[in-house]
Amino acid sequence: MITTFYNSIKTYGIWGIALSMGIFSISTAQAEEYFTIKNNELQRPTGYREWVYVGTPVTPNEMNNGKAAFPEFHNVYIDPKSWAHWKEKGQFRDGTILMKELVAVGSKAAVSGLGYFQGEFLGLEATIKSKKHFPNEPGNWGYYSFSTPDHTRLNTSAKAFPTASCNACHAGAAADDFVFTQYYPVLSAGKAAGKNATGGVLSDLTAKE
Amino acid sequence: MITTFYNSIKTYGIWGIALSMGIFSISTAQAEEYFTIKNNELQRPTGYREWVYVGTPVTPNEMNNGKAAFPEFHNVYIDPKSWAHWKEKGQFRDGTILMKELVAVGSKAAVSGLGYFQGEFLGLEATIKSKKHFPNEPGNWGYYSFSTPDHTRLNTSAKAFPTASCNACHAGAAADDFVFTQYYPVLSAGKAAGKNATGGVLSDLTAKE
Repeated sequence: MITTFYNSIKTYGIWGIALSMGIFSISTAQAEEYFTIKNNELQRPTGYREWVYVGTPVTPNEMNNGKAAFPEFHNVYIDPKSWAHWKEKGQFRDGTILMKELVAVGSKAAVSGLGYFQGEFLGLEATIKSKKHFPNEPGNWGYYSFSTPDHTRLNTSAKAFPTASCNACHAGAAADDFVFTQYYPVLSAGKAAGKNATGGVLSDLTAKE
Repeated sequence: MITTFYNSIKTYGIWGIALSMGIFSISTAQAEEYFTIKNNELQRPTGYREWVYVGTPVTPNEMNNGKAAFPEFHNVYIDPKSWAHWKEKGQFRDGTILMKELVAVGSKAAVSGLGYFQGEFLGLEATIKSKKHFPNEPGNWGYYSFSTPDHTRLNTSAKAFPTASCNACHAGAAADDFVFTQYYPVLSAGKAAGKNATGGVLSDLTAKE
């Protein structure tokens, strides 16, 4: 059997063997633990509030002519396996999924002062980095939205947006591999930071990794 | 030996036996997996960015006469074991710790619009619900800050604030057991919600649990 195997490698090459053994499909499946794409549609991910949170901007409707592009807060999460990779390598691995959960401004004043306070959930978006699904997209990122136009429901699945819809802005302004890490301090402070990425480890808040 | 044990129970009562066996200290220790209080000072917790995120308000300094009470964003986390309890029972268990990580406004405009975008970390605060440590405080909650006045460093440990400093506002305005769940949608949507608490499960964003 070993002789036969060796002969096969000589004939087909090691990659030919790997392909026929389905090794590529195994490793791709392992990159997709946190999402499922079926018939070209991303199935709405669940459980992401137990992933790793990376930061929240707020673009209130009232500051954006009544209609912010991503109303109004958005809480962003990275899947746990990609977080582990980010802490170690400072890169987004193939198979990264980031969730963006939209939240309404619920209040503009509280006992803690004036500002913007979170209210009801409004929508859900996602971005996935995948060579398999987005071989021709910049950085291999695809972008999705599950929000309905009136922001009262979430669709069960979604097709990816065309490049111009989302990546165009990311390409021009995002700090790191098409991700706006400059606004997500858990990511920027955590880049290849190991244990220091997990919070409360460093006493010096001004220390750069 | 069994007879001796039975006789001991008759003499000391089952609680007497439990006390002498240190059973009370075991259960209290189990409630403190995520924090350590030594000599009345809370040791600065680490790793909380991998706990469960519950929400972020922003009180910009510029909206608060240049000096917000909790400058400027604060990202709040609940420890994982208390989250599990919250999902199941809708209550904060004895031993709950919530972390509040302060973040500066880094920017007020981005390609996504006008608003407030997170910048550098500024400070760290915590609140703990513990009958053992705060027998006389409302709800048994104690409050701590590790921030230095100039927001450049974190102290290694902290003493709890007096009741009037923190709990006074919480008592008057917080929606649920002295916690401002009304501004923390992951908590309010997740209260006794089981799997629905984890995000993306319900299609109807207006559904109340």
